Amino acid sequence: MQKTLVVIGVGLIGGSVAKALRKAWKVEHIIGIGRQRENLAQALDEGVIDEGFTDLLTGVKRADWILVSTPVGKMPGIFSDLARVVSDTCVILDAGSTKQDVVAAGQACLGRHFSRFVPGHPVAGAEVSGCIGSRADLFQGKAVVLTPHDNLDKNALEAGRTFWQACGASVSLMDPETHDRIFAAVSHLPHALSFALVEMLAGRPDAEQLFTFAASGFRDFTRIAASSPEMWRDICMANRVELIRVLTQYREQLNALLDGLSREDAEALFNMFEKAQLARKSWKQERQ
Amino acid sequence: MQKTLVVIGVGLIGGSVAKALRKAWKVEHIIGIGRQRENLAQALDEGVIDEGFTDLLTGVKRADWILVSTPVGKMPGIFSDLARVVSDTCVILDAGSTKQDVVAAGQACLGRHFSRFVPGHPVAGAEVSGCIGSRADLFQGKAVVLTPHDNLDKNALEAGRTFWQACGASVSLMDPETHDRIFAAVSHLPHALSFALVEMLAGRPDAEQLFTFAASGFRDFTRIAASSPEMWRDICMANRVELIRVLTQYREQLNALLDGLSREDAEALFNMFEKAQLARKSWKQERQ
Repeated sequence: MQKTLVVIGVGLIGGSVAKALRKAWKVEHIIGIGRQRENLAQALDEGVIDEGFTDLLTGVKRADWILVSTPVGKMPGIFSDLARVVSDTCVILDAGSTKQDVVAAGQACLGRHFSRFVPGHPVAGAEVSGCIGSRADLFQGKAVVLTPHDNLDKNALEAGRTFWQACGASVSLMDPETHDRIFAAVSHLPHALSFALVEMLAGRPDAEQLFTFAASGFRDFTRIAASSPEMWRDICMANRVELIRVLTQYREQLNALLDGLSREDAEALFNMFEKAQLARKSWKQERQ
Repeated sequence: MQKTLVVIGVGLIGGSVAKALRKAWKVEHIIGIGRQRENLAQALDEGVIDEGFTDLLTGVKRADWILVSTPVGKMPGIFSDLARVVSDTCVILDAGSTKQDVVAAGQACLGRHFSRFVPGHPVAGAEVSGCIGSRADLFQGKAVVLTPHDNLDKNALEAGRTFWQACGASVSLMDPETHDRIFAAVSHLPHALSFALVEMLAGRPDAEQLFTFAASGFRDFTRIAASSPEMWRDICMANRVELIRVLTQYREQLNALLDGLSREDAEALFNMFEKAQLARKSWKQERQ
């Protein structure tokens, strides 16, 4: 069924897909394409990929499957290049955290190959970047959201589903707008808030003192602030309409908090905190 | 050296101190005082305490050491009660997360016993509440900040230092104002932001859908939103001047972020995220 997989962007996600599919499917050949020679060399050394190129066009012709797992801002250019060389049977997938922009880029740049483009978002990640953190089991039991478009070939969609299921993921389908609204709220916003906090504290004259006494609450709240700035710049820019909306809503929430504090309204604070605690506890229970 | 320890508030902190000191010092007798009979009964069953009372005054007369580990809002009333019955040699400690208000309450309510009141903040905690989560090693390698006041007896301060060191903690001294400024930024603010996010999402009509796709970034960012609403209401109210200040600063930070998104200024976002990433990574490295 599968022969040659080309992974464009051999980072945490791309490397993990390569490892997972080699294990599950015994893919015949994995080609890695990336910007950093060192990273490719390491991926080769570890047997994550069988060949590595910094040039996008090399190797892509032979692909039966292509996974684009770069920051989303790079995808339009990559799709344009791909459109010139891929075969007419190749299934193209992406792993971007935003979907409206990626689908639009696919439509604009992939030409006739758009019908075999399966947009997807593996909801798995970590603050570590690069192939070095990749794991065959990264997607085990995790969600992958596919956002099929009107031009998508049914067989390609099924192939995409099989691809991610073989990685161990549980596949959901939704439209790109719903996807971007949901992930603006539960992922892009927390990342932006966490980056914003750390940058603010780091810029204060008492930063060193602050970081000395920062403890486990700070550690967990800011774990995601160690994520790739390039990746998150692209996500925030790509989903900026939804992010602005939810960030504005959150600013209103902070205004309510500031108002409660200024009025010394202990009950208002208690109510907010209690609702949050109940929701967070029941979320955790449902996950277990 | 130590005979009878009275722990007022046998929760995560109080229970962990009892366990740690019994192990380290072989204290002769530990009396627990709390509001919830069930919690006291459990602490008795598990041998965390030797006697338990819901009435504050019972047992306190016999105390050589008293640890007040209740929400900070309860402390003024407790101090007033204590002032009427404690011996003139008893060392009184607290474990409140705010210090200016607690020192002021001690001064206002403890009378002549204020000279043996050692205000402290063990920088260790978890989102779990109650004695059930307590551990003898909770303070191992963690910081305890003591904020001595002008009326504090030197022997009492040294006793307080010994007390927390026996729990395994590393003791720092600072003035209460500095303490409250630091912890507003690195602890109280992240807690408030995390509660605010979860409460906002839980109140949205699409809450169920949002929580279904919330993943590990959300999990860690919101772990502290499962903390005790009562405890955090008290902390936020007690330290509201500093919290308002830092929350206002953070709102400015969000305004800058919103501004960058509205202007489609990818570079501004990248710079903020990159500064945060560098600061967070070097903080993590220094901790290892």
